[in-house]
Amino acid sequence: MTDTDSHASRLQAQLEDSPFHQLFQMTIASVDTAAQTLALRLDFTSAVERQAGTGQYHGGAIASLIDIAGDYALIAILGHGVPTINFRVDYLRPASGAALVATATVRRAGRTVGVVDIDVEDDAGRLVAIGRGCYGTQAG
Amino acid sequence: MTDTDSHASRLQAQLEDSPFHQLFQMTIASVDTAAQTLALRLDFTSAVERQAGTGQYHGGAIASLIDIAGDYALIAILGHGVPTINFRVDYLRPASGAALVATATVRRAGRTVGVVDIDVEDDAGRLVAIGRGCYGTQAG
Amino acid sequence: MTDTDSHASRLQAQLEDSPFHQLFQMTIASVDTAAQTLALRLDFTSAVERQAGTGQYHGGAIASLIDIAGDYALIAILGHGVPTINFRVDYLRPASGAALVATATVRRAGRTVGVVDIDVEDDAGRLVAIGRGCYGTQAG
Amino acid sequence: MTDTDSHASRLQAQLEDSPFHQLFQMTIASVDTAAQTLALRLDFTSAVERQAGTGQYHGGAIASLIDIAGDYALIAILGHGVPTINFRVDYLRPASGAALVATATVRRAGRTVGVVDIDVEDDAGRLVAIGRGCYGTQAG
Repeated sequence: MTDTDSHASRLQAQLEDSPFHQLFQMTIASVDTAAQTLALRLDFTSAVERQAGTGQYHGGAIASLIDIAGDYALIAILGHGVPTINFRVDYLRPASGAALVATATVRRAGRTVGVVDIDVEDDAGRLVAIGRGCYGTQAG
Repeated sequence: MTDTDSHASRLQAQLEDSPFHQLFQMTIASVDTAAQTLALRLDFTSAVERQAGTGQYHGGAIASLIDIAGDYALIAILGHGVPTINFRVDYLRPASGAALVATATVRRAGRTVGVVDIDVEDDAGRLVAIGRGCYGTQAG
Repeated sequence: MTDTDSHASRLQAQLEDSPFHQLFQMTIASVDTAAQTLALRLDFTSAVERQAGTGQYHGGAIASLIDIAGDYALIAILGHGVPTINFRVDYLRPASGAALVATATVRRAGRTVGVVDIDVEDDAGRLVAIGRGCYGTQAG
Repeated sequence: MTDTDSHASRLQAQLEDSPFHQLFQMTIASVDTAAQTLALRLDFTSAVERQAGTGQYHGGAIASLIDIAGDYALIAILGHGVPTINFRVDYLRPASGAALVATATVRRAGRTVGVVDIDVEDDAGRLVAIGRGCYGTQAG
């Protein structure tokens, strides 16, 4: 079951309250706290371009998308901010197209640490990168 | 022995030829192909801020800095582009201050794969994050 | 579709042709080259025990299980040995019980590099650890 | 300054109190709590051999060595057990020879999390693998 739009809207407002995030066009496409998943879309703009004219996403933009998607998947179920402890990104293919969607799935939300998997697909449904993040889950 | 300024200048020009990089103020502070190290500085601007008013660097900006520093450490010694295969970032402390410097050290530049360690320090010399990247080293 | 038993048998024989593997009781439980998955079971014996009397698996045994499962998932579809380039293990819970099963799923088998995800469950179906490995896929 | 032999001896006794560790010949070669480093040696025996007759160390044995060295580097300075949260291993070269030495250096020992780097060299001083581990530092 997907959450009500109001939950996604609140998370979207929180997402946009960051100068770094404002560099990019990112949208919380869906959030499902029962399934512990969240989808974050990144639209292609010149801000994410690897090299002028290539139409390819920069790896740093993809890494940021992964980190943020994992973070917000935990924020959605815990209700408070969770600092990233570490994360890993594996790039599988050059990424291009109108948008990328990062789907974050919480694998474990423990007392002190949470672990999230993030798959990134292009708009043709090709898997372009995968991430795995570890976050601190204790409330501030 | 640090390389001549002309080598750093050529790498700097290459660095700036990317719309994504142009979001940030990044400077190749030094390059030493004998020691296989490269230092990349990221100045604090609102583009890297995690949340307005905090003065803290966003984790995504730090991850990008790490990936780029590791990439250019290999580019400096190989002379051609090297795609990132995967990388890991560990965040050790919240990062603030006027600039961060990422120092990348090549641990192994093999025939197909290169591995680079990247330490990120703030301007007080505190270690704020560490990265480890694996790059494809075969020429195009 | 699961492969014929003869494929699993051949891989099992190859698995046992290693002094390190012979320390443990590991069995290729299933292999499905169409789905690009392979399941490797590790039985509890004193060889894997973390500390005498705890009945818990040592993290090193779990890491080895993950690396080997990922490796054999690629061997099963490529037909030749694939060296591990790097891998990551996240431990989610203390692991105990009669056996662990590592299910490896190939996420990408590229020309030079393959990436595999490995989930480890105990015999109650609890997820105890997850791994992600990157392997060199070029034939010798 | 290296610690007194009695500190290394106490850690060695603790190390050997594990059925999994007893499979291998591992020795705490040195411990320096001021520098926050610890060296752990693994002697070549058939238990660590990748494939009979190769004389090469199995990646799982090297991964275990890395995890244990990182763990004990934190145990040495904190005085209590620290569970592994996650770790990464990068293999740089096939490893052979009479012994490997893993040198673990604590990069950060925080209130909840510690991060340790581990370099593994063969007896000719060649770097064969590097690890990075993240451990929970809160006392039980």
